[in-house]
Amino acid sequence: MARVKRIGLLTGGGDAPGLNAVIRAVVKTAIKEYGLGVVGFLNGFGGLIKNQARELTEKDVVGILPRGGTILGTTNRDNPFHYPVVKEGKKVFVDVSDRIFENISIQEVDALIVIGGDGSLAIARELYEKGLPVVGVPKTIDNDLAATDQTFGFDTALTTAMEALDKLHTTAESHHRVMVLEVMGRYAGWIALTAGIAGGADVILIPEIPYQIDKVVEKITERGKQDKKFSIIVVAEGAKPEGGEMVVQKTVEDSYDPIRLGGIGHVVAQQVEEMTGKETRVTILGHLQRGGSPTAFDRILATRYGTMAVNLIMEGRFGEMVCLSGTKITSVPLGEGAGKMRQVPLDSDLIRSARQLGISLGD
Amino acid sequence: MARVKRIGLLTGGGDAPGLNAVIRAVVKTAIKEYGLGVVGFLNGFGGLIKNQARELTEKDVVGILPRGGTILGTTNRDNPFHYPVVKEGKKVFVDVSDRIFENISIQEVDALIVIGGDGSLAIARELYEKGLPVVGVPKTIDNDLAATDQTFGFDTALTTAMEALDKLHTTAESHHRVMVLEVMGRYAGWIALTAGIAGGADVILIPEIPYQIDKVVEKITERGKQDKKFSIIVVAEGAKPEGGEMVVQKTVEDSYDPIRLGGIGHVVAQQVEEMTGKETRVTILGHLQRGGSPTAFDRILATRYGTMAVNLIMEGRFGEMVCLSGTKITSVPLGEGAGKMRQVPLDSDLIRSARQLGISLGD
Amino acid sequence: MARVKRIGLLTGGGDAPGLNAVIRAVVKTAIKEYGLGVVGFLNGFGGLIKNQARELTEKDVVGILPRGGTILGTTNRDNPFHYPVVKEGKKVFVDVSDRIFENISIQEVDALIVIGGDGSLAIARELYEKGLPVVGVPKTIDNDLAATDQTFGFDTALTTAMEALDKLHTTAESHHRVMVLEVMGRYAGWIALTAGIAGGADVILIPEIPYQIDKVVEKITERGKQDKKFSIIVVAEGAKPEGGEMVVQKTVEDSYDPIRLGGIGHVVAQQVEEMTGKETRVTILGHLQRGGSPTAFDRILATRYGTMAVNLIMEGRFGEMVCLSGTKITSVPLGEGAGKMRQVPLDSDLIRSARQLGISLGD
Amino acid sequence: MARVKRIGLLTGGGDAPGLNAVIRAVVKTAIKEYGLGVVGFLNGFGGLIKNQARELTEKDVVGILPRGGTILGTTNRDNPFHYPVVKEGKKVFVDVSDRIFENISIQEVDALIVIGGDGSLAIARELYEKGLPVVGVPKTIDNDLAATDQTFGFDTALTTAMEALDKLHTTAESHHRVMVLEVMGRYAGWIALTAGIAGGADVILIPEIPYQIDKVVEKITERGKQDKKFSIIVVAEGAKPEGGEMVVQKTVEDSYDPIRLGGIGHVVAQQVEEMTGKETRVTILGHLQRGGSPTAFDRILATRYGTMAVNLIMEGRFGEMVCLSGTKITSVPLGEGAGKMRQVPLDSDLIRSARQLGISLGD
Repeated sequence: MARVKRIGLLTGGGDAPGLNAVIRAVVKTAIKEYGLGVVGFLNGFGGLIKNQARELTEKDVVGILPRGGTILGTTNRDNPFHYPVVKEGKKVFVDVSDRIFENISIQEVDALIVIGGDGSLAIARELYEKGLPVVGVPKTIDNDLAATDQTFGFDTALTTAMEALDKLHTTAESHHRVMVLEVMGRYAGWIALTAGIAGGADVILIPEIPYQIDKVVEKITERGKQDKKFSIIVVAEGAKPEGGEMVVQKTVEDSYDPIRLGGIGHVVAQQVEEMTGKETRVTILGHLQRGGSPTAFDRILATRYGTMAVNLIMEGRFGEMVCLSGTKITSVPLGEGAGKMRQVPLDSDLIRSARQLGISLGD
Repeated sequence: MARVKRIGLLTGGGDAPGLNAVIRAVVKTAIKEYGLGVVGFLNGFGGLIKNQARELTEKDVVGILPRGGTILGTTNRDNPFHYPVVKEGKKVFVDVSDRIFENISIQEVDALIVIGGDGSLAIARELYEKGLPVVGVPKTIDNDLAATDQTFGFDTALTTAMEALDKLHTTAESHHRVMVLEVMGRYAGWIALTAGIAGGADVILIPEIPYQIDKVVEKITERGKQDKKFSIIVVAEGAKPEGGEMVVQKTVEDSYDPIRLGGIGHVVAQQVEEMTGKETRVTILGHLQRGGSPTAFDRILATRYGTMAVNLIMEGRFGEMVCLSGTKITSVPLGEGAGKMRQVPLDSDLIRSARQLGISLGD
Repeated sequence: MARVKRIGLLTGGGDAPGLNAVIRAVVKTAIKEYGLGVVGFLNGFGGLIKNQARELTEKDVVGILPRGGTILGTTNRDNPFHYPVVKEGKKVFVDVSDRIFENISIQEVDALIVIGGDGSLAIARELYEKGLPVVGVPKTIDNDLAATDQTFGFDTALTTAMEALDKLHTTAESHHRVMVLEVMGRYAGWIALTAGIAGGADVILIPEIPYQIDKVVEKITERGKQDKKFSIIVVAEGAKPEGGEMVVQKTVEDSYDPIRLGGIGHVVAQQVEEMTGKETRVTILGHLQRGGSPTAFDRILATRYGTMAVNLIMEGRFGEMVCLSGTKITSVPLGEGAGKMRQVPLDSDLIRSARQLGISLGD
Repeated sequence: MARVKRIGLLTGGGDAPGLNAVIRAVVKTAIKEYGLGVVGFLNGFGGLIKNQARELTEKDVVGILPRGGTILGTTNRDNPFHYPVVKEGKKVFVDVSDRIFENISIQEVDALIVIGGDGSLAIARELYEKGLPVVGVPKTIDNDLAATDQTFGFDTALTTAMEALDKLHTTAESHHRVMVLEVMGRYAGWIALTAGIAGGADVILIPEIPYQIDKVVEKITERGKQDKKFSIIVVAEGAKPEGGEMVVQKTVEDSYDPIRLGGIGHVVAQQVEEMTGKETRVTILGHLQRGGSPTAFDRILATRYGTMAVNLIMEGRFGEMVCLSGTKITSVPLGEGAGKMRQVPLDSDLIRSARQLGISLGD
């Protein structure tokens, strides 16, 4: 391969605090360290397919480090291998990945950095296998990627949830109530478990451990007997009762997230209220958890990822993605662990610590 | 009246950040400045009726200034003039206010400070008229009391809502979405309006101005034409469509707050999604707005209220309540403006400013 | 005067959180409400003198509401009536105000908004008297302007100082120490007094009340006897001992602020340490107090000021400046109260409240 | 050894956010999981020597999770093997460790948990070698312990420093200044380096890399040429010029921390101001960095440490200390790595990332 002179990057999937920090690190490292040009494709793979792009200079990344969101826009639609087009009045899905190769060529880009979650990285892998020089940067706010010890965005989401618990604590205490906080985590309970520990929850319900409402009620009743008149319950959106299903919610077609008209948080709250007779209140954090200025941890992790991704390119290590292993940034093959959800291990010290503190996990 | 040697205080109604700051200021002023004893009655008027009380010393108020909630507990049940008792298997309401006079005497309390909202202050007024030496401290997180320029707790609630908008902004921007934030304010739109201005909302719906969903959609569409692909809508829980009703929600008997199973925020979101085709997300802050460490403004206002309340007692000015007028703490008769909701004046510069900034108020 | 079609604005003096919120409100109101053009002059009066300006559109103000600083830059040099030029190798000061009239004409600006402190507003007044259509927006982080009940930026600075006190509290408690926090306030003690009340300080030293170190030590010793082993002292940078001078610090010529090589905070700390034998630590917040995202209060006040300033222009009310009076935005003649420092009134309820809480003011 | 029925714990050394979280986790795990009694010794080893202790119940740890400091008090004096006593009018140092064994026996404590830094853990090791059943929990805000991947308190201190940088950024930008932030880190630059990366610093000076002031000035000048008129410099308190010494500061005898009368931050600021002619401002965070509510990361790490410490005791693994290794809590021999400072490795990806972003490290 010829020398890399110009790189492209895009952000795909749901947004996560730290995306801008990755973009900034990529742009600064590329320009200052290696003298490269940088092109940002807009709105995930959509911009790569439609050739919507902008040159990124140092000026473009001034001041974005502390800001949530992504200056490039993002989406989780627009899979180039399964792209919706209307043919004879019908929506059909076709492979438009060739356009990506064309646009890469038009933009004179020699290598591409894809920052995204499981879905985006799987697409990146497919493009790499078709011959595109790609490196990946893993991203998911849920911290459920198998390939890395931690993802950026997670620490910020966890912090938002913990701060909510800190606030609920005072009002629960004053009023002798049960407070239910529903947090993100459809398939893995990382946010619920860690925020619950950090925020002093009494009950934490996560997808990994189907719950029995009787056990939840038992914990609240036991607290009442010890003259603790309030309780705090954290519920991951993917928590489900033993033998039950995830709560079905109205979803908008093509949208990855339901409009929440009473998710599992409401279900748990109602049951608890009925069974204990205690006033119960629900807070749904929703997209708040994706927003806000990234924490120090997330800014630093995202920045290290960004510089490392450019280094991978300059070393010709395409088909790899950066990851955190212990305290070090390293890399693994793109798509490693794809499809494997990193759930909270039931034998982890986190789970053990929660139980030993007297937190009920609903089982 | 004999010299005051010992005072009582209680916190009634929903909790609000700053209650502990009032308690601390009362205790410190009473003890340090006047050498009084202080008794705290627990859980609002309930403690006064049931003679549940504790001595409050300087030690008890160490470290509570920055903490939300109230160390005395609070509730909005337990009206002594309309108190539920079970007679012959039936719940009936009776006047138990005499017990309050007994308990005041048992506790050797010479005067009482009631910190509470409209309801609690009306009870305080009735007790005063029956002969109890009472002074009041107004409290409502909704800022809708007629007797004072501002109430403590409001600035903290507004800040919580504004910070939520700051977070939603980044994620809305990145994803081209409509975000709906439902905030408190059943009868007055202070939180929604001020948080909306402070957080850069595009649409703000408040109880004072019945909205037309067409106008809301028009604003979003107009933004789309200007290439602004996201919009932020703030909805007060008491907002209602023109000609419509406040959204009926499941309520638990005797509870002042509904369990929210899709309040007006969800209604607006669904309509907007259907009419614009844009993905729309809802966040319900709920009781988060009552929690958290009070802001500087609220701590200072609460502290000034607390010292002033003790001063009123020592000057024998019973039947009065403290209030803020401009930059000064002063007092008005207890119950002044009771029952009069202080709504946002439609001709205020706040409303005008919102409109001139291009914010749609749905009309 | 002909119809206003285009307005200019500049930010002068030290920066204060909320400047961007004023700029945003001016731009939005001017464009959306009145269809005006807007020109921003850069770096205070310097840009007006040197004709450094940029067109401001709605796009330029997107996202600046929550951001500290000013997108226009600011400085407190460059007084057009006393402007330094080098003549025959010597620096002399001349009147270059005519250039401002020329540049206003070149930029086709019909009226000017000056956002600034006492100094900038005095210049604005002089320009108005020379015939320039000017309106003013008062700004000072110290809250010491006579013409308005409160200035924006102050609430944010106060919050920064209070949060510092919250942090110092825990570490002082754990270690049995005296902690000294030096805050801004060269001539008025608003930040020190309000932050001290909000942050639970034991001693507050402000310029309005010359302190006696013996009284400070007495308070700390008294606390020790009550088994309170730590104390928190807040010192305004302009605090001075009775009969003493403000601490002379190294200053850089033409700079409004000294490099702090041990200001009054250090002086107090050393004396306390020597006289009590207790370990004493100093924190100097410095410019932190000018930075950060503005609080809700400051964003709203700044926004109301901005829309009101444009309204004043459209109503032809030149020579006026906006101000806060109670809960209302109104206006006063430009330069009203100029040169009059709004110090903390010694008979205010704030001072009384502080004393009644047992806080020592060093006298 | 007989079955453990009762454990003691103490916190030694400088305080760090998260100490209360460890205490809470120890108490809850001991009581709920194992039915043990818990005794807290006050003020570090001093309480163990003087038999100052209190029973710790679940009630004592309610609400302390989010609070900085330590409810047990701490100090870094009072080494039992080198304890100051006055003999014949002279201060001499003697071994009083036998008293500890007596007091342990008087308190009927079967095992001891020592939470502390390098110094406290060395003492713990010595006590263990003399026969005391001890386990350790490592603590240092500077993150410079060799035995663990990260210490609690560090993430909070780093966050405080980063937030300060976020604030300084806006005011530096608006005013075209150089801002110097001095942070903790006498022997290791972890806080300076990570906060500098997270806060977008232009220059970071750490103890590991002696700086050349010319290189610092060069970076600022280079930025000026690129039309970046402000610069942010982060200086660890232990940074020193090439060939130079750490800045000597006035110290109070027996105190581990100097009163700062112009430390290295001031030295750098003065040199930069003189050499560049640019206004330069200094902020000294000082003890702010030890205070405040712990971050989510620190609360979780501290909690895991606390439960693990009790588990070590119940498994009879005395002479060990808990530590973080990758994502797991594990243990190493007490005192492992004692005396070995964990400095920032010069070949770490953190250092490389900083350089590649264009940050000057002064060399």
